[in-house]
Amino acid sequence: MKAFQDYYPDNVAHCYGCGSRNDHGHRIKTYWEGEESVTRFTPESYHTAIPGYVYGGLLASLIDCHSTGTAAAAMYRAEGREMDTQPPFRFVTGSLHVNYLKPTPLGGALEIRGRVKEIKGRKVVVESTVFANGVATATGEVVAVQMPESFGA
Amino acid sequence: MKAFQDYYPDNVAHCYGCGSRNDHGHRIKTYWEGEESVTRFTPESYHTAIPGYVYGGLLASLIDCHSTGTAAAAMYRAEGREMDTQPPFRFVTGSLHVNYLKPTPLGGALEIRGRVKEIKGRKVVVESTVFANGVATATGEVVAVQMPESFGA
Repeated sequence: MKAFQDYYPDNVAHCYGCGSRNDHGHRIKTYWEGEESVTRFTPESYHTAIPGYVYGGLLASLIDCHSTGTAAAAMYRAEGREMDTQPPFRFVTGSLHVNYLKPTPLGGALEIRGRVKEIKGRKVVVESTVFANGVATATGEVVAVQMPESFGA
Repeated sequence: MKAFQDYYPDNVAHCYGCGSRNDHGHRIKTYWEGEESVTRFTPESYHTAIPGYVYGGLLASLIDCHSTGTAAAAMYRAEGREMDTQPPFRFVTGSLHVNYLKPTPLGGALEIRGRVKEIKGRKVVVESTVFANGVATATGEVVAVQMPESFGA
């Protein structure tokens, strides 16, 4: 099954967090599970905050790209279109807000689950939660904005 | 001159963003310039968002660690103590909010400048701005919380 990110146009698929064409990046993959979008990602051993816990900047990055991917997928859904139809949707981040609820243990996969809170014109608001071993450790809200056509040109 | 991060105790100096003991991380260095704290950091060529622009997750990470470092330094200042005195101050992130004002061009050093907005008990609120070539491209607010003594033990 193709992930949301697999539908990003090649010229805008270099994002360090989610671009399939960035060899150094996280290359996250996001899928629908019913009304929720889900990314599963295993941090590297060096993605440390305090020893034993995941770096908060990585969590912010995962929430960010998970949410912009969800925004794109949500826009296709809202238009009743498949993700391989034209024109493609690609979103950038207008704002990112993360609340760290508790330390996120390092070791094993994290699950980021998102829900669309609002679609308004070119903006999509996505609420995402990071789970470690089934426990919510951080929540985020991203205002994603449809990328201007001039980007990546 | 030693940076704020050079005073972090060894057992909590592994952060991917700012730990001097993390060989894979960004190892940012922050200093006072009057009432402002300043970090200068040059992204790698692969820290891409859209080609030609800096990955927003990296900007969030820089704001995060710059702000927790500023929080620690501010607490020493508030107590009239040098940063090499005991007990050490080390902060974690309670919340992180980033507004992306415009795309941040990739190439050359970024400057992150911070100001302490409020100190209240164990919390310090820091406002930080990312500048590229002197132009503000993102602003952030971090609520930094003094690390529980149990961390890193």
